[in-house]
Amino acid sequence: MFRPRLSSLPNGSALQNCKPPASSSVFGSSRYTRHHARFHSTQADVQASRVQVELSQNRKPRPDPANLSFGKVFTDHMLTIPWKASSGWGAPQIHPYRPFSLEPSVGVFHYAQCLFEGLKAYRDETGKVTLFRPDMNMERMNTSAQRIALPAFNGDEVIELLKQLIRLDKDWIPNVPGYSLYIRPTMIGSQPVIGIAPPSEALLFVICSPVGPYYPEGFKPVALYGTTEYSRAAPGGIGAYKLGANYAAGLIAQKEAAKKGYVQNLWLHGPEHHVTEVGTMNAFAVFKRPDGTTEIATPPLDGMILPGITRDSVLNIARDHVAGKYKIAGLPDKLVVSERQMTMREVKEAAQSGSLVEFFGTGTAAVISPVNKIGYLGEDIQIPTGPDGMGPVSRPIWQQLVGIQTGIIQHPWSVVVVE
Amino acid sequence: MFRPRLSSLPNGSALQNCKPPASSSVFGSSRYTRHHARFHSTQADVQASRVQVELSQNRKPRPDPANLSFGKVFTDHMLTIPWKASSGWGAPQIHPYRPFSLEPSVGVFHYAQCLFEGLKAYRDETGKVTLFRPDMNMERMNTSAQRIALPAFNGDEVIELLKQLIRLDKDWIPNVPGYSLYIRPTMIGSQPVIGIAPPSEALLFVICSPVGPYYPEGFKPVALYGTTEYSRAAPGGIGAYKLGANYAAGLIAQKEAAKKGYVQNLWLHGPEHHVTEVGTMNAFAVFKRPDGTTEIATPPLDGMILPGITRDSVLNIARDHVAGKYKIAGLPDKLVVSERQMTMREVKEAAQSGSLVEFFGTGTAAVISPVNKIGYLGEDIQIPTGPDGMGPVSRPIWQQLVGIQTGIIQHPWSVVVVE
Repeated sequence: MFRPRLSSLPNGSALQNCKPPASSSVFGSSRYTRHHARFHSTQADVQASRVQVELSQNRKPRPDPANLSFGKVFTDHMLTIPWKASSGWGAPQIHPYRPFSLEPSVGVFHYAQCLFEGLKAYRDETGKVTLFRPDMNMERMNTSAQRIALPAFNGDEVIELLKQLIRLDKDWIPNVPGYSLYIRPTMIGSQPVIGIAPPSEALLFVICSPVGPYYPEGFKPVALYGTTEYSRAAPGGIGAYKLGANYAAGLIAQKEAAKKGYVQNLWLHGPEHHVTEVGTMNAFAVFKRPDGTTEIATPPLDGMILPGITRDSVLNIARDHVAGKYKIAGLPDKLVVSERQMTMREVKEAAQSGSLVEFFGTGTAAVISPVNKIGYLGEDIQIPTGPDGMGPVSRPIWQQLVGIQTGIIQHPWSVVVVE
Repeated sequence: MFRPRLSSLPNGSALQNCKPPASSSVFGSSRYTRHHARFHSTQADVQASRVQVELSQNRKPRPDPANLSFGKVFTDHMLTIPWKASSGWGAPQIHPYRPFSLEPSVGVFHYAQCLFEGLKAYRDETGKVTLFRPDMNMERMNTSAQRIALPAFNGDEVIELLKQLIRLDKDWIPNVPGYSLYIRPTMIGSQPVIGIAPPSEALLFVICSPVGPYYPEGFKPVALYGTTEYSRAAPGGIGAYKLGANYAAGLIAQKEAAKKGYVQNLWLHGPEHHVTEVGTMNAFAVFKRPDGTTEIATPPLDGMILPGITRDSVLNIARDHVAGKYKIAGLPDKLVVSERQMTMREVKEAAQSGSLVEFFGTGTAAVISPVNKIGYLGEDIQIPTGPDGMGPVSRPIWQQLVGIQTGIIQHPWSVVVVE
């Protein structure tokens, strides 16, 4: 069993010349332009300086880290920012964690006017607290909002408010390696009218939940069921947006995969069964090519793939390695990084011929989730994994990524919340 | 301008031999089998006899029918039925209309665990109150629930509870012809956990809103924009289910159609631009064929089309007419009823050659919504409409349908709530 030994990761010495990745945007345009373009002059944007803070008078007991299960326990405080079409964003409020009172007619109950983000705050041994690439979450959240006619907002101001919220509840981050605080920004349509129209009222809120390591016992490769009965996304649809609507519709495929004895499902698309996503994660495959190079490949952002922040980080780390900007010990030198379509036929043939090196999912919760088997059209495709559960490409990338996330490797992706 | 004169509709004399349509199900299997099959013996189903009624002590003023706008005003009472995975459905509660208190972590805010139905209660001149085919709504609601791993329930018991609720608030149905009470059954996932899994708690609730006629000034044909930028549904997706998720994702297409000067959008599918739905309604076209017959056509229930109850009723009325079981005055004798694919090319060519007789949408809110124009790839396809806004096939079908709905024509589809 492999337990991450972060102290043995490459240390700060190599990082003096570390630069932000060439493209810090997976969306292809500046978030500043986008965030501000849609505001009329009469509408207020989110302003962190207007925040009203109501401290909790009844601090809850901290949960025992050993018994944490994902997303069931929430910290003492939360952030709420109301929006109205007529006036824009109201004063942000940080207040005790408590239920919402909502009319039965609000849009989120009827028309799935909801979207979310997920990111983590990490605390290192010295007490320093950091967030990982929160600007990417804010950018994607704005993109999601636009897709379902919910309001845009200034992501930098919300990051400032996230920091204030996390500082208030920072002692909820368990003081145990591998633990973190999961931050869940959410937006819902809250107009109390059942006519179908873009909502004229909305609520942005953020709740926080302490979480343990995804693999407390070391990496455990998962078996996937290649879903051909259901589809996750289609051209012109919502697959590229982090909308609640993608998740409700996906549960049944996960349920059926579990019934067949698999841990998760692998979403396939079209008659050629293109690989798209692994459950709620992005999909990566690694191939050994005839010319001696190693290819790390993931489906392109063609409108059906969620622009994952871990996906983007994996691609950037691999590309910086290839470009020689930022060498990662253990990664093959002759590495080719591809965003391209791959069919199940290709994956299957590569597995049979021995040229499939590994297959994994990426996401905020698990970071990297190795796969050891794909059930496809009645047979099981076996995928190689190393003795530690990982593969030769995902292992060094994971070490680098987790090193940055936990603050052991200094990097501009890491945003300081508490010094 | 055409104002419906229901008193001139075919009266009861032709209705003595009226039978329920051959197939009363659009879903192909008995709802009784489906509703009960998924319950374990330890889980309680919905039982109307367990209802707890709390009467409102503050009856609200009835709105002025002249100023009603859709879905903004709700009656004095509502129905709520809680569900837990461990115990099944709890005691139904009819209580004053009031907000819900829900934890910020419940599934409906994050993962679009929501679905709904819409049906209407009508009151005739004698005070008799009826519902139109409520069994179809309950059946579809169960089908929707199953698609996103929400619980099934006994539809007959919920109909019984709907009747109790409507009886309590029956004086909210405006005493004006063309008005009705819109009933909105809804189900949401209410488990306060942000892990993505089938919800272990849910809430079925029903709210009621008095509504006016969709076309108070007579039929007003609408201009549609043929949407090629977005898609509503895809094979393996959720298009055939009345889930909130379909509606959030559709708003933007509606918004862009409006920006281009059209009233609604027409959903097209695939490279051949198959006609699928009209905004949130089913789509119908009527063609004059070379052999002298008239064809009324709508896309088949191929998994991408919502199985509309008005759609099914229109098809049944037309088929009963063709079969001679139930002749409708004014409908062509040589009528052919088709559930089949149609491409925009076919619609456009038929419009140009003069063989397109009419095009309309069907749904609970508008019943039948005639179309006079379709903007498609930069040009406008003109669709004929009669002087009253309707066409020669939709007009007699609409009269029959509204006659049944309002109780002027006796029919088994009409379910008595108050004698």
